[in-house]
Amino acid sequence: MSADVNPDLRPRRLADLRDAMGRADLDGLLVSSLPNIRYLTGFSGSNALLLVTALECVLLTDFRYEAQVADEVRGGATIRIEPTNLWAGLWPTIAGTAGVERVGFESAHLLHRDFARLLEQGSRWQWRPTADLVETLRAVKDADEVARIERAVGMAERALQRTLKQIHPGLTETAVAGVLERCLRDEGSEAFPFPSIVASGPRSALPHARAADRVLQTGDFVLLDFGAVADGYCSDITRTVILGPPSDEQRDVYEIVREANVRASGAVRVGLRGMAADAVARDYIADRGYGDAFGHSLGHGIGLEVHEAPRLARSVEAPLAAGMVVTIEPGIYRPGWGGVRIEDDVLITETGGRVLSHFPRHLLEIA
Amino acid sequence: MSADVNPDLRPRRLADLRDAMGRADLDGLLVSSLPNIRYLTGFSGSNALLLVTALECVLLTDFRYEAQVADEVRGGATIRIEPTNLWAGLWPTIAGTAGVERVGFESAHLLHRDFARLLEQGSRWQWRPTADLVETLRAVKDADEVARIERAVGMAERALQRTLKQIHPGLTETAVAGVLERCLRDEGSEAFPFPSIVASGPRSALPHARAADRVLQTGDFVLLDFGAVADGYCSDITRTVILGPPSDEQRDVYEIVREANVRASGAVRVGLRGMAADAVARDYIADRGYGDAFGHSLGHGIGLEVHEAPRLARSVEAPLAAGMVVTIEPGIYRPGWGGVRIEDDVLITETGGRVLSHFPRHLLEIA
Repeated sequence: MSADVNPDLRPRRLADLRDAMGRADLDGLLVSSLPNIRYLTGFSGSNALLLVTALECVLLTDFRYEAQVADEVRGGATIRIEPTNLWAGLWPTIAGTAGVERVGFESAHLLHRDFARLLEQGSRWQWRPTADLVETLRAVKDADEVARIERAVGMAERALQRTLKQIHPGLTETAVAGVLERCLRDEGSEAFPFPSIVASGPRSALPHARAADRVLQTGDFVLLDFGAVADGYCSDITRTVILGPPSDEQRDVYEIVREANVRASGAVRVGLRGMAADAVARDYIADRGYGDAFGHSLGHGIGLEVHEAPRLARSVEAPLAAGMVVTIEPGIYRPGWGGVRIEDDVLITETGGRVLSHFPRHLLEIA
Repeated sequence: MSADVNPDLRPRRLADLRDAMGRADLDGLLVSSLPNIRYLTGFSGSNALLLVTALECVLLTDFRYEAQVADEVRGGATIRIEPTNLWAGLWPTIAGTAGVERVGFESAHLLHRDFARLLEQGSRWQWRPTADLVETLRAVKDADEVARIERAVGMAERALQRTLKQIHPGLTETAVAGVLERCLRDEGSEAFPFPSIVASGPRSALPHARAADRVLQTGDFVLLDFGAVADGYCSDITRTVILGPPSDEQRDVYEIVREANVRASGAVRVGLRGMAADAVARDYIADRGYGDAFGHSLGHGIGLEVHEAPRLARSVEAPLAAGMVVTIEPGIYRPGWGGVRIEDDVLITETGGRVLSHFPRHLLEIA
């Protein structure tokens, strides 16, 4: 497995994190979130703890990853291979680090079971809950990260193009998911960032449906929500197509969602608050009479995780910054009738939003 | 989405849990593990909390799942749909339940962030950490659960059979994963229980490799570790095949692993300790000179999760019980050379182990 963080960028990330730790009056930070560890060190294994202090950066993992961690981290952190339990290795690691008293931990990424270890075996240090120290850094992507996301977007779009040629009434949603996932793999996607959603007919009204055994029928909306992963970075796009000619009502609902997507994608820019971005799509949909039918928020950041900071939602006051990559995914869902969602991935730049996904947004009639 | 727990079985599960709560001197239990909630109620959504008391069982989820939760739970719990945050709905739910003072929570499934909510907003109750109350019940499968696992095993085996006909030198591991996953979907698998492992040549020596961009070559071992999901229940099998004729050394290593699998699969029975099951395979491999090359434990339970209780490992004293379903997966890994793992799924019965996976264990030469 190749290293998936450009090693040249890691010292900058650690320096920024240490600045944030200084502002929070912390001598050290225990990082237990695996995507945060990957961001800071490049390590992509499934078992790790990271201790960051003013002068040191120590990564603990187990013997299964001995070869992989050396390859991925390449000197960006001191590596400790633990024979049994990472926590057993943590205490001597902290004790061996001079001047560490106040240590932060990630409140949203530490289980109570492990928090109890800090209070028991780690009682000689002062433990302070922290929130979003690394996530805030991750929200703003550098050029290398944007390039990876763009590659993941390209994989997803080419896979969708090939999949749509193979969709027809009579297939199950699960079979369509199989076609789509095969195409994603053929395009080089190294994983699936989330379980593929293929929702047809009335099931397209369920925003969180997965693929099931329903058989596609003429007249159905078919909603496909999926992504690819390139060098650790995710894409996340949704298109809703129709099997056969649409009814007037289907066309009308689709056009409202399409226009909401176009308006919101065009509106996002540096300084716009998350709530204001959300309102661009929500107000348009509400004005057309479907305010109650858009039952989720407008979008979210993507990167090493498919859901990360920032959020574009009614309650979010934080403004967008250059380098953020967000989804724009308005939808209308009518129980028993069906639903439409159109989702693109957009990079926020100094001069406005740049839509990274180029797949057509108009209503495609299939078969 | 259809309900995925037989509604007739749920009262029994709740009664068993209430017995365990009584032994732990708890008036209530807050269940935050989603697989545990699914086991007790049938609900398969991604956002839920469950409160179980002596007389009540209240499931909290959000508006996105309103239709799904009613369909899946069918009267097995009182459903509360929360408009914003499940925690905001928890406090009035507990307050409305008479006689509740001591409430357990799942220490291994509650984040510090949410534990802090218990201490702050939930300070009028006494919160007690618990471990494995539901997991212990889940470890023993009923006939309905075994049938689902058997269906998932069948899907995985048929998918493997079809995939092996399409493997040849020149394909990337990622492309092979795509073929396999497509076949799994065609067999009806509703999800992938874990990221597929397709590891070839020297990469087969990495026990936790995923599929990557390495190109398959004649003479490679190709290790495939994957599973299917049927009505919520997982299978997990591994086969290692060879591209072209094996060397003597490859054949020898393979035969040791095969024999270790056969011996351990034949030895597991009611009353055997996890450590003793592990030792059957480990001692055999060590006697053949590869003791250091089997760097993980023998197996683990499968069910609603692909890794669950019990564990078959050196440190585990607990004995196997009838109704447990475990993997048996010995391996030999030689860095730089390659590795072999052969994994089957075995049901523990009163009369011995019944191997649920029937795919041939002998070394298959492909292409």
